[in-house]
Amino acid sequence: MSTTATYTVKGMTCGHCVSSVKEEVGEVAGVTQVEVDLATGLLTVDSDGSVDPAKIVAAVEEAGYEVANR
Amino acid sequence: MSTTATYTVKGMTCGHCVSSVKEEVGEVAGVTQVEVDLATGLLTVDSDGSVDPAKIVAAVEEAGYEVANR
Repeated sequence: MSTTATYTVKGMTCGHCVSSVKEEVGEVAGVTQVEVDLATGLLTVDSDGSVDPAKIVAAVEEAGYEVANR
Repeated sequence: MSTTATYTVKGMTCGHCVSSVKEEVGEVAGVTQVEVDLATGLLTVDSDGSVDPAKIVAAVEEAGYEVANR
């Protein structure tokens, strides 16, 4: 089963920031595709099955950014 | 002879941008040390002898940024 989840990331300022987030989130087990929109901070994560949102939040923090409260 | 030259770089928004500029400018022949201040855009380049400013400007552009007119 393929799942899509969205998050809002705060603090990204440029394409390098986008790359960092994509790289870290892409390393989370089960994640198959990651899209990031710099202007809005929208992070879209596709995965095989569901992925614990805490793992996505941790990956974003690892990259140096924050997920906005939802 | 050691020479120090300063430039003002426009468009850097974060630490990743600073790293990109330092990396590209650091690869210019003769450059011995590079410092970048994100807040002000100040780029300080130490070199053995003098380096053609056009090469520094080109390196900054290679990194994706601009040197302000002086």
